[in-house]
Amino acid sequence: MREVAIVGAGMTPFGELWTSSLRDLFVDAALGALRDAGADHLDAIYVGNMSGGQFVGQEHLGPLMADHLGMAGVPSMRVESACASGGAALRAAFFEVASGASDLVLASGVEKMNDGADVTGVLATAADQESEVYHGITFPGLYALIARAHMAAHGTTLEDLAAVSVKNHRHGALNPKAQFRGEVTLAQVMGSSLVADPLRLLHCSPVSDGGAAVLLCPLERAREFTDRPIKIRATGMATSAMALADRKDPAYLDAVAAAANRAYEMARLGPTDIDVAEVHDCFAIAELCALEALCFTERGRAGEATRAGETTIGGRIPINTSGGLKSKGHPVGATGVAQAIEIVEQLRGEAGDRQVKDAAIGLTQNMGGSGASSVVHIFERV
Amino acid sequence: MREVAIVGAGMTPFGELWTSSLRDLFVDAALGALRDAGADHLDAIYVGNMSGGQFVGQEHLGPLMADHLGMAGVPSMRVESACASGGAALRAAFFEVASGASDLVLASGVEKMNDGADVTGVLATAADQESEVYHGITFPGLYALIARAHMAAHGTTLEDLAAVSVKNHRHGALNPKAQFRGEVTLAQVMGSSLVADPLRLLHCSPVSDGGAAVLLCPLERAREFTDRPIKIRATGMATSAMALADRKDPAYLDAVAAAANRAYEMARLGPTDIDVAEVHDCFAIAELCALEALCFTERGRAGEATRAGETTIGGRIPINTSGGLKSKGHPVGATGVAQAIEIVEQLRGEAGDRQVKDAAIGLTQNMGGSGASSVVHIFERV
Repeated sequence: MREVAIVGAGMTPFGELWTSSLRDLFVDAALGALRDAGADHLDAIYVGNMSGGQFVGQEHLGPLMADHLGMAGVPSMRVESACASGGAALRAAFFEVASGASDLVLASGVEKMNDGADVTGVLATAADQESEVYHGITFPGLYALIARAHMAAHGTTLEDLAAVSVKNHRHGALNPKAQFRGEVTLAQVMGSSLVADPLRLLHCSPVSDGGAAVLLCPLERAREFTDRPIKIRATGMATSAMALADRKDPAYLDAVAAAANRAYEMARLGPTDIDVAEVHDCFAIAELCALEALCFTERGRAGEATRAGETTIGGRIPINTSGGLKSKGHPVGATGVAQAIEIVEQLRGEAGDRQVKDAAIGLTQNMGGSGASSVVHIFERV
Repeated sequence: MREVAIVGAGMTPFGELWTSSLRDLFVDAALGALRDAGADHLDAIYVGNMSGGQFVGQEHLGPLMADHLGMAGVPSMRVESACASGGAALRAAFFEVASGASDLVLASGVEKMNDGADVTGVLATAADQESEVYHGITFPGLYALIARAHMAAHGTTLEDLAAVSVKNHRHGALNPKAQFRGEVTLAQVMGSSLVADPLRLLHCSPVSDGGAAVLLCPLERAREFTDRPIKIRATGMATSAMALADRKDPAYLDAVAAAANRAYEMARLGPTDIDVAEVHDCFAIAELCALEALCFTERGRAGEATRAGETTIGGRIPINTSGGLKSKGHPVGATGVAQAIEIVEQLRGEAGDRQVKDAAIGLTQNMGGSGASSVVHIFERV
């Protein structure tokens, strides 16, 4: 298997981008990645997108995006794994380069959520229609159940949940691409509107538009495009029971743990080797569960670690230096690729006020639904 | 790059399968492929599907299908390229095995179209929403424009178009999995209801439910699973302008030609080396255009070749021995994988009454939209 590197990265700001269409968002991100690498052609494109069909009435994003990039002809397909679509696109692109079939492959993600669709209803199509959604539950409710299970099993508190949001907004305030750049206090989070008990508005990631793209090539060619290549050390993916009720422990994200174990094994690294990580905090409880499944903390101790500052910039293991989904925004198909871009910037030493000192190895964890699919990548400065 | 083989194949019958859900269709096909190979585990799954979200309110098919197959845990993602989703899933699965990352990878496709959705409206989301669908056109109209352009440029006749349907129904009558197993006459085709001038009902593929799956593994391990492995000699993909009006010649499928050229080059083979092929006859005109883009006939001569019997079983280059999309049915996400299964059966010598004598090398051509994306694979008996 050939070694693979990221040699270019581009992304739009995340937010309510009313004047940008789905295709605009892709093109802005893709051109950013191409310019960053000084590349003028592509061998293939992967487009991570959860639901162009339902959000804006547009499927078949592979050729559409190649065409609007000015590259009609280039092989291009869409990859979907709900909110892990971006991570899945990165993984598929990695395999195409690793196989030796292609050299310059763009892994991208894009979502246009603010365009009039019933967003919560569309997102719910990532849960099990027959055993969950039919009965009326949507994702805030599913993650509220996860939160209650975690609180019951481990004594996790409302303050623990709120500390995740406070930390991620503090990081996001330093990120020019973030949707929400304001800090929030523990009191503000705990006093925000109740969405699905115990989750409040400021525990929930927002509805966002955005695009993100990274350019992959064989590591041996990377220095043709950049003097700061970032090697993809590992890709791990796993699934779990689709319906939350079918999992042994709803407070434990077993697909995340399995994806992480595969990635750690492939990279021949462990959790203590990771200097910085982006994890999938679609709701505050998801970050706590992810920290435990990734073995960054012991099981049940993620809330305590968060309140102790271990996951902040400057802490033991800085998590979501970008602001995470909570503050940076969560255009669902783009999120997995945007996570990789934050790690690329950190490992290049270009993260500005958010820079983690001497970051050499980073990790991303992206997931779909209530954790039924998860993709973990490990990156290294070379 | 490792060489890759197909070692198992399974598919449901195609048709109006009112008692089977989307997940049932996948599981039936996947279990068929696993049984065919005598395999009891998988390293990864790719699910080709155009629009589960719009057809049945279900995205995130990767984990859902792994779960319902009894294999929750296995990495699994959906791939979409409209009606070429199955071919795209096969291509992505090929890269994962070729890279060396995984050994046993299932490439599948599934679609549940008969479940109450506005099928023509959903399918139209594979065309360009901004420059085509907004103005009211859907796929019968787009392919009618292609047919008129072909007739104007090359003198193609209504009889040429009808001959495609007559031939494909004759083939499909021999296929136990086909949706329509009745033969039709030239007069019946030409007298059927007008759908979009000049296309009539019997020029159009039907609305179908179905699933199809093939099991891939490294060629060097193939004989652990079968004594009749089929090697995947090549995969080629290309895109074109999304909107028909943006193409230089609407009667020429340039994405098909480019995908074919890439596949011929990778296989170091040409069109005269192909013994049998499945092409994407979503409408009769599409088969004629595909024959020309694949260089099975000269440009403008596909209608004449069809009427002369060159593309029938026993002819110079038998096309759509399965019955094609027209007679076998066209559950859009499953079609590309079902095409591969017909070629596998032909190359194994297991196609029964449809057997092409001494078939050793076969080709599949799958496409999305009005030809904006196309995937071509070449297979060989080894």
